[in-house]
Amino acid sequence: MDYTLESGVDPLREAINASLTNFVDRENEYLRTIASELYPVADALKNFLIDSGKRFRPLFAAAGFVGSGGILDAVSINALASIELVHVCALIHDDVMDGSDTRRGAPSIHRLFEKLHRTESLKGSPEQFGVASAILLGDLALVWASKALHESGMDSQSILRALPLYDEMRVELMAGQYLDVYEQALASESIERSLKVARFKSGKYSIERPLHFGASLASGSNLAAYTGYGIPLGEAFQLRDDLLGVFGDPAQTGKPAGDDLREGKRTVLIAATLQRANPAEKDRVNALLGKPDLVLSEVEEIRAIITSSGAADFVENMITELTADALAAIEIGTITSDAKAFLVHMAAVATKRSY
Amino acid sequence: MDYTLESGVDPLREAINASLTNFVDRENEYLRTIASELYPVADALKNFLIDSGKRFRPLFAAAGFVGSGGILDAVSINALASIELVHVCALIHDDVMDGSDTRRGAPSIHRLFEKLHRTESLKGSPEQFGVASAILLGDLALVWASKALHESGMDSQSILRALPLYDEMRVELMAGQYLDVYEQALASESIERSLKVARFKSGKYSIERPLHFGASLASGSNLAAYTGYGIPLGEAFQLRDDLLGVFGDPAQTGKPAGDDLREGKRTVLIAATLQRANPAEKDRVNALLGKPDLVLSEVEEIRAIITSSGAADFVENMITELTADALAAIEIGTITSDAKAFLVHMAAVATKRSY
Repeated sequence: MDYTLESGVDPLREAINASLTNFVDRENEYLRTIASELYPVADALKNFLIDSGKRFRPLFAAAGFVGSGGILDAVSINALASIELVHVCALIHDDVMDGSDTRRGAPSIHRLFEKLHRTESLKGSPEQFGVASAILLGDLALVWASKALHESGMDSQSILRALPLYDEMRVELMAGQYLDVYEQALASESIERSLKVARFKSGKYSIERPLHFGASLASGSNLAAYTGYGIPLGEAFQLRDDLLGVFGDPAQTGKPAGDDLREGKRTVLIAATLQRANPAEKDRVNALLGKPDLVLSEVEEIRAIITSSGAADFVENMITELTADALAAIEIGTITSDAKAFLVHMAAVATKRSY
Repeated sequence: MDYTLESGVDPLREAINASLTNFVDRENEYLRTIASELYPVADALKNFLIDSGKRFRPLFAAAGFVGSGGILDAVSINALASIELVHVCALIHDDVMDGSDTRRGAPSIHRLFEKLHRTESLKGSPEQFGVASAILLGDLALVWASKALHESGMDSQSILRALPLYDEMRVELMAGQYLDVYEQALASESIERSLKVARFKSGKYSIERPLHFGASLASGSNLAAYTGYGIPLGEAFQLRDDLLGVFGDPAQTGKPAGDDLREGKRTVLIAATLQRANPAEKDRVNALLGKPDLVLSEVEEIRAIITSSGAADFVENMITELTADALAAIEIGTITSDAKAFLVHMAAVATKRSY
């Protein structure tokens, strides 16, 4: 069965989900033959994968693929979908690093295995067992990502053409994650530094590299145009995410209200607030930011300062400008018209104001 | 420059080290271009890689490669050495999961970054920063492993032939690590269960799969003979490691005396001891095992029970028998004579009684 970008995002996302489900079912069958103790690993990874969302990276990969002359079919979708498993690794490890209890309303992997430790009355520390399990499940997802690509059925030449970009994407991801963790610990107030992290974390990893990955699976053309689209749109996407992390509706984000504030995330939004707020407000934000038991009234207090300082508007304007830059970039090069239309749509999806 | 197995282990190990150093220097140069904040990441990974030892896995991979008709040169050594980086990931993550403070006398990666957090007076928890950094450095090592293989210079056909085994090895590694963690938490007394973990952890991951990986980079021949050698030798190696973890000289193992006892590791040696000891001794072992502040006199008390129960001899005999099985297996198939001689030597190295 063939797919086209003209059918829109949903049918393509379903095809991506079907490919991922198929892969993970096959792998889990194998895990189960090794030992029954691996059943919880298989179940947890399958549930995590199926629950985990928007499939932005495979969708962008598909756009890059079609835009550079590729034809979407079951085989190419297998290859394009595989990068979602890299993301699964990043999310599982991210939750351990942040100490997050939940992911999209469900317990995070380390909490799930902590619970298993308690239910089965195992020996030792439940927390340590949870962390160890989550590290290994994340590692396994990262290995699965490669395996899914290698076994996709794509011809060898296309796979070999994609590997250098694929490797670079994953190196950048890990480097970007470290910079993010370091930046949080530095508690930097620099907009420039926060933007650099955003560039690696979202611009390159979530959009540019998936586009490149897809393009290189097809022909390797249009890489520069994809960079021109991916980097600014990635920043815009990250900025939107920062706004959602503060103002987002818990029902939609799957996280408690103001969760980024509680975590003390040093975002561009926060950096802009601290630059614009008066000394008293600045002290107040610094005092509350990262307070683990931050209550709703305190969340609202910070929100008010972010808005009144003009930082929220400043970030909204950046999103608008960056998105315009992204859309201008795809007019250059030989990106096919169906891919272009899809990328215009995806830009709106990635940056839409939905809170 | 060409290498032969006849020159022995040391020159080959040096060539492997040179290839790894070359790779990591190149990658670190790239990391440094991203951001100066990544200098500590680059330095830590290089030091860890260079300090980390015996290169068993690349050496076995080289034996499998030559034994199946491959010629050792700078390019093939690049490809064979790459699996050491998978091991670096496993070690870094292992230390986080075990909460180990040191690795071969130096601070473990998570402790190193915990210290960096303190030195730089960063915000938040130093322990959490250490763990987050170690998770990401391990992830990066795992990605580097693939990158080093892809960029080795080997012809595409050989790389594509090796990828399925390479993927399977890494899946087995993560599954085996989980089984190990689970087994510790289960505090199982079953010899059979402990052996199953040993089979995955050492038999398959440390010996059989490296041999297969090397063989598949050459021609893909002799896989069954390598399995016949790798599985029992891996078990013997693990059993030797278990003995060293209890009786080993700290100067040689780089770990405090009786460290496995302090960690409460459920090894075949411990299972055999608990099966053979009298009820009072058994209670004593169970009471002391896993005690975090175990002192030397207590270590010696457990050692005495392990010896007097006959468990140490039982495990020594298993090592002898398993090694004999391994050596018989390589007489079948078409393994080249130089590879055979090398494997005989490696069997002695892997199981030698050096405490």
